[in-house]
Amino acid sequence: MLKNDTFLRALLREPVAYTPLWIMRQAGRYLPEYNATRARAGSFLQLCQSPDLATEVTLQPLARFPLDAAILFSDILTIPDAMGLGLYFAEGEGPKFERPIRDEWEVRNLTVPEPDVGLRYVLDAVGQIRRSLAGSVPLIGFSGSPFTLACYMVEGGGSDDFRHIKGMLYRRPDLLHRILEVTTEAVIRYLNAQIESGAQAVMVFDTWGGTLTPAAYREFSLHYLSMIADGLIKHAEGRRVPNVVFTKGGGLWLESIADSGYDAVGLDWTMDIAEARRRVGDRVALQGNMDPMALFGSPDSIRAEVQRILAGFGMGSGHVFNLGHGITRFTDPEQVAVLVDAVHQLSRPFHAEVV
Amino acid sequence: MLKNDTFLRALLREPVAYTPLWIMRQAGRYLPEYNATRARAGSFLQLCQSPDLATEVTLQPLARFPLDAAILFSDILTIPDAMGLGLYFAEGEGPKFERPIRDEWEVRNLTVPEPDVGLRYVLDAVGQIRRSLAGSVPLIGFSGSPFTLACYMVEGGGSDDFRHIKGMLYRRPDLLHRILEVTTEAVIRYLNAQIESGAQAVMVFDTWGGTLTPAAYREFSLHYLSMIADGLIKHAEGRRVPNVVFTKGGGLWLESIADSGYDAVGLDWTMDIAEARRRVGDRVALQGNMDPMALFGSPDSIRAEVQRILAGFGMGSGHVFNLGHGITRFTDPEQVAVLVDAVHQLSRPFHAEVV
Repeated sequence: MLKNDTFLRALLREPVAYTPLWIMRQAGRYLPEYNATRARAGSFLQLCQSPDLATEVTLQPLARFPLDAAILFSDILTIPDAMGLGLYFAEGEGPKFERPIRDEWEVRNLTVPEPDVGLRYVLDAVGQIRRSLAGSVPLIGFSGSPFTLACYMVEGGGSDDFRHIKGMLYRRPDLLHRILEVTTEAVIRYLNAQIESGAQAVMVFDTWGGTLTPAAYREFSLHYLSMIADGLIKHAEGRRVPNVVFTKGGGLWLESIADSGYDAVGLDWTMDIAEARRRVGDRVALQGNMDPMALFGSPDSIRAEVQRILAGFGMGSGHVFNLGHGITRFTDPEQVAVLVDAVHQLSRPFHAEVV
Repeated sequence: MLKNDTFLRALLREPVAYTPLWIMRQAGRYLPEYNATRARAGSFLQLCQSPDLATEVTLQPLARFPLDAAILFSDILTIPDAMGLGLYFAEGEGPKFERPIRDEWEVRNLTVPEPDVGLRYVLDAVGQIRRSLAGSVPLIGFSGSPFTLACYMVEGGGSDDFRHIKGMLYRRPDLLHRILEVTTEAVIRYLNAQIESGAQAVMVFDTWGGTLTPAAYREFSLHYLSMIADGLIKHAEGRRVPNVVFTKGGGLWLESIADSGYDAVGLDWTMDIAEARRRVGDRVALQGNMDPMALFGSPDSIRAEVQRILAGFGMGSGHVFNLGHGITRFTDPEQVAVLVDAVHQLSRPFHAEVV
């Protein structure tokens, strides 16, 4: 039994006493204790690949702040790494692949990795984190979206223009679809294996879908996101396993995203949450959406932003508070404490009628 | 008299025979002749500061392609440089300022530069380009938006999180407003001086407004954009001088932008142009909106994208074709020739009824 299931209930739009929150990248470089563990691990990849250390950093933000969920500490690119692309981190440059996928034969050779084998270390971390959480709050599993994973797989790393994958999209859409099909199957198996290992909710991060045209978004990202929603395990341990999709920069396409089969939709901070709620009605819950940079304001301005977002969503359940993107390394943890406290305190009046 | 005024007519939604086009950053690094001139200039800044060389590169894309407008070749950061911030370009790092604006005394010391003095080289280039164009196509003048200029002024260069300016926005909104007030006055005087020197249309580039929350966008970007629209010279040389505003990533706020007082609104490629036209009605013309990366497709896929966008806008005037962002340096000029030809040929049926 979970001591605090507010997060799961809000995702399913069931009554709650306050608006739950967690923070994207809550286990991260803004925490000195995280940096200490990472230094001990030797590298970011070694940190991800050690279930002991991944468990340790997953729990760190929960020791500091009364957050309503834990999220598996892992990298977004574990799947392509397990496909054999050779993930590495060049100092100060972000993730890269030794063997990006560009040619037809490379695409044809892609296969779905067996989670139990190539991604065993992630599943072990999920199990170990669940045991360590001891029922305090739910654990979120996650994956990158097929299109987002394909961006890194084709570009060979981060990009500011995505010209290789977009060149493929326009010149050889068949090849890109093949990459996305294999990756979609891999994501479904990966997330289901996380659920079977103990994840109590799952989230798909479509970090780069928002860089597409509306037509290309529907064809190359949303279509596969929808297939994932269909393929996910919906119940485990006797309760519903809610799922969340987040396309950064997808505000213009909110209705289509809300219809893609997920329980909840993540919002970045460019979307007015009141307008979002009007547009999606009661189809989905919403997760978000404070600008991570609002944490560089004053305690008073943080509370004002929290109040603005809570009032924007309005009365009742169906809102999980979060930032609209990952918290940055330069954030002062004291400001995070202000945020967490503000959400918990200021949200109670918005749930007064229903509890 | 202009030989080709299709661009100006389309911005004013007057009948035209075909959809005109120009390309953001059309004079740029994808052209070998541009790179040759830049090498001769010594540096990007020297290129901008020489009216002879700025004229030369402004005309280069027009010698290759039958574009419907020329745009002044200049840098977006001329105004803060004239304010004394010390613009420089670190190799491979983009623009930087020697003296960013962070402290209250620095904000208080900001003054509006006199265009005739500190920006004389830009006005000289405008006059020289106009003479060289000899009435072939209109010349577009431009400026960065107050918020976009303030981003560089406060950050001291480019940024991927804007934490300094957003920290100021949340902690000391009064200081940011003061920067924006001074910059707005500077932009109005700068654009009006460009018009008096011969610019036949002007465009305000709000490159970073789309990184704000909706509330902050209205208060810190759109408010000042609207003041600029009010302050611009509307007629010169006996004809209307149309103005265009472009907030990259502003699709969610399209109605407010369309109501801010400009003749035309630029669209990036994440917005469906058919939906945009429905939302703005006949309030403004639209400019855009092909993904610059579509130029990495095949000639057939480029023509298909052009057709999709033209059909999306539909029948009649009020559309200036463009990319949704600047063309990138890796683009093959042959692909640009395909684009220009496709827009001119494929757009004629959409104007058949009205001409």
